Amino acid sequence: MEENTEPEMKKQPSFGWVTEDNMALLTDLYELTMAASYLKSRRNELSTFELFVRHLPPNRSFLVSAGLEQIILFLERMRFTEDSIGYLRSLGLFEEDFFDYLRKFRFSGTVYAIPEGEVYFPGEPVIVVTAPRIEAQIVETFLLNTFNYESLVASKAARVVIAAEGRGVIDFSPRRDHGTDAAMKAARSSFIAGCVGTSNVLAGKEFGIPVYGTMAHSYVMSFETELEAFREFVKAFPDNSVLLIDTYDVIEGARNAITVAKEMERSGKRLKGVRIDSGDLAELSRRVRKMLDDSGLSYVMIMASGDLNEYRIRELVLNGIEANFFGVGTEMGTSKDAPALGGVYKLVEDNLGPRMKFSEGKVTLPGRKSLFRLVNSKGKFEKDLIAAEGEKPGSGDWYPIMVKVMEDGNVVYDFPSLAKIRERCAESVGRLPDELKEIEKVHGYKVEISSGLKRNMERLGYRFG
Amino acid sequence: MEENTEPEMKKQPSFGWVTEDNMALLTDLYELTMAASYLKSRRNELSTFELFVRHLPPNRSFLVSAGLEQIILFLERMRFTEDSIGYLRSLGLFEEDFFDYLRKFRFSGTVYAIPEGEVYFPGEPVIVVTAPRIEAQIVETFLLNTFNYESLVASKAARVVIAAEGRGVIDFSPRRDHGTDAAMKAARSSFIAGCVGTSNVLAGKEFGIPVYGTMAHSYVMSFETELEAFREFVKAFPDNSVLLIDTYDVIEGARNAITVAKEMERSGKRLKGVRIDSGDLAELSRRVRKMLDDSGLSYVMIMASGDLNEYRIRELVLNGIEANFFGVGTEMGTSKDAPALGGVYKLVEDNLGPRMKFSEGKVTLPGRKSLFRLVNSKGKFEKDLIAAEGEKPGSGDWYPIMVKVMEDGNVVYDFPSLAKIRERCAESVGRLPDELKEIEKVHGYKVEISSGLKRNMERLGYRFG
Repeated sequence: MEENTEPEMKKQPSFGWVTEDNMALLTDLYELTMAASYLKSRRNELSTFELFVRHLPPNRSFLVSAGLEQIILFLERMRFTEDSIGYLRSLGLFEEDFFDYLRKFRFSGTVYAIPEGEVYFPGEPVIVVTAPRIEAQIVETFLLNTFNYESLVASKAARVVIAAEGRGVIDFSPRRDHGTDAAMKAARSSFIAGCVGTSNVLAGKEFGIPVYGTMAHSYVMSFETELEAFREFVKAFPDNSVLLIDTYDVIEGARNAITVAKEMERSGKRLKGVRIDSGDLAELSRRVRKMLDDSGLSYVMIMASGDLNEYRIRELVLNGIEANFFGVGTEMGTSKDAPALGGVYKLVEDNLGPRMKFSEGKVTLPGRKSLFRLVNSKGKFEKDLIAAEGEKPGSGDWYPIMVKVMEDGNVVYDFPSLAKIRERCAESVGRLPDELKEIEKVHGYKVEISSGLKRNMERLGYRFG
Repeated sequence: MEENTEPEMKKQPSFGWVTEDNMALLTDLYELTMAASYLKSRRNELSTFELFVRHLPPNRSFLVSAGLEQIILFLERMRFTEDSIGYLRSLGLFEEDFFDYLRKFRFSGTVYAIPEGEVYFPGEPVIVVTAPRIEAQIVETFLLNTFNYESLVASKAARVVIAAEGRGVIDFSPRRDHGTDAAMKAARSSFIAGCVGTSNVLAGKEFGIPVYGTMAHSYVMSFETELEAFREFVKAFPDNSVLLIDTYDVIEGARNAITVAKEMERSGKRLKGVRIDSGDLAELSRRVRKMLDDSGLSYVMIMASGDLNEYRIRELVLNGIEANFFGVGTEMGTSKDAPALGGVYKLVEDNLGPRMKFSEGKVTLPGRKSLFRLVNSKGKFEKDLIAAEGEKPGSGDWYPIMVKVMEDGNVVYDFPSLAKIRERCAESVGRLPDELKEIEKVHGYKVEISSGLKRNMERLGYRFG
């Protein structure tokens, strides 16, 4: 309720709002009011905040970390420019001392995190920020905004990729993603999770992700006949044509595609594929596959699309779909069955020692911690251990999951390429217990709390039931 | 399946990807391949594409238009820079002629649209683009990305505002929105729909929306006692403090807030409010209200928050909650119960005349059209009429809903301020039939197809059942 005094609404429309210069203001106002109060009260002691997810979203047995790269860049580069400070001044809330502080603001903290592409589970510290209290607090909103969406999509896309059983999955989501930044992050996160590419050209440019595309129904409708449309398209793309065959009738469309493919062969070219976007995809794809094979066109690939998700794909695979690729849009880019990840960012330690919340269903684990994962003799993940800082797990093939990414405000992390992150995800998902990869049913995974951490909790007054 | 030949993954991390310079590439690859083919085939005739929503999302009886301003700015300013063209060249898909075309690309079309803030219904043309085919086609992805999200949130937020029955609703969504652009658009769209403000500081700066904020639990936990935390906060914000009273115990928290409010009164200051973020909000708010009133603090406002949506708010209002404000985050910013709006963009007319799709459940209405709304004697919306271009509705208080926003590539629209758009939305929602504003039940609204439009459809071979 600390509104500014009803400012004149801007009349000049603006565009492309979030830039490196102003991203520090992409924050909830309360981060700034708390910061100002900490400054005034001289409560800027070293504190540790932890980003973690309390509960799995519905239908999920595991989560995939994503977004860390953007978070580190934010921490490294966030600044309060004079323009930003000018706006804050206009609110009439803050004192000049606070603006002096903001003007010199540089994040000087140390950050540990689970690398991108690694699977993780509720309760586990994903990003741990230790910094003077103001710095640690003020970055909360941006960290959550970034992590919650990127990890949400990576976690969803991992399921879609599992369901596709080796067939290529392509991100077709830009038109339904929540804005432009989401379209970029959806492409990136779904690629991390194993998608083979995206339809999003800018994501291709910025991330080097392979870009894929076919044609729209409006293209086919823009010509007198489907056959003419196909002929004109392959004239423009003799090496890269995927023909959309369901504008009028899939079987007739397949016949037209075969006609064109045969014409292409005469000039030494090959039709790359056909796409089916509606109808009974399993049945139609089998008929089209047979028609293509019977015409000596076994090299022509089939892409299936149209409101797909991991459940539909699983069903199509069980029903023997003949598809080399699935195009997946809305359901993946919005994580439609679970469109929000409830990542939170909580104080766990400060000058008063380890801190914890006791509220029912909202318990936080106190103090700085380590996270370990046990690999069993079959090479699969057996269980995880959340331990107090410095505590070591017992015997067995445990490995630490978190890495130091920033130290005293400096990046000390060698950013892996997106290809490497994607490999890490494939390996991490590959080592999950098989039941966690079931599409239709949710399974639990054991995350233990170490004896040292339990002692710390009891010391703070927590009673284990 | 037109991927580039597996490029080297970029190693240098990037950030803040979408800018005015490269936004033209925020598009599905197929828009560009179709464009290249149209260019090669000389099929660049004047065409009309229509953006519309086929079906209401679950739990919605009406939709609110939003996003038009960003769309017009995109159409006016989109360019293909040498940098963008350089990337496209690297894909090995296109010919130099196409790059010459892109280099000179300026959108030269004419656009009609339903103004932002106005309610609309499935099947109705929301944005109608008439332009040379390549131009009309190539903008599809960006238009859909922008409109689908902004209208999604405006439509959701309108319901939340209705449920709040006059209490202020504040956007608290940045930490759960799908990326940074979504956080900005959520603030803008929910403000259009009647929210009183946002926690998002950058949205305050860029749009002039009032910003609101309180404090986090971590703030209270950062002091030895809750009382000390409250005292320190009001020291920093003597005129604008809202104290979060549920970190430990709401009633004890209310007592501490009253202590501090009384101390403030001694120096002529007033505590602005308290916030309750958990527990039985209706019951707790009534107890806190009484405690405040009994202490002569009837001016202290109460804000309620915590996983709120229109259903919860409706229930809380029915249960007599004593709240002046609701803070609503995740559910509104992700439109959680219906996280995607299925807006589509279809060819309706070109040099071959009016065009229509017949596919089951995917019929498009052919040709350029007009849209009218009938206001009844009580000042309420009675029904809408989709008519063929130039056709007039019969007698009654019909008014046209669409306005011309661009002509031959020039903006001919006086952008209303956000305050004006918000007023328009309040009036438009106010004129809805009452049953459409029910929270728990979905009701239909009559959208008629004119006799002229029906004749056009029959002429194209459509048979009305």
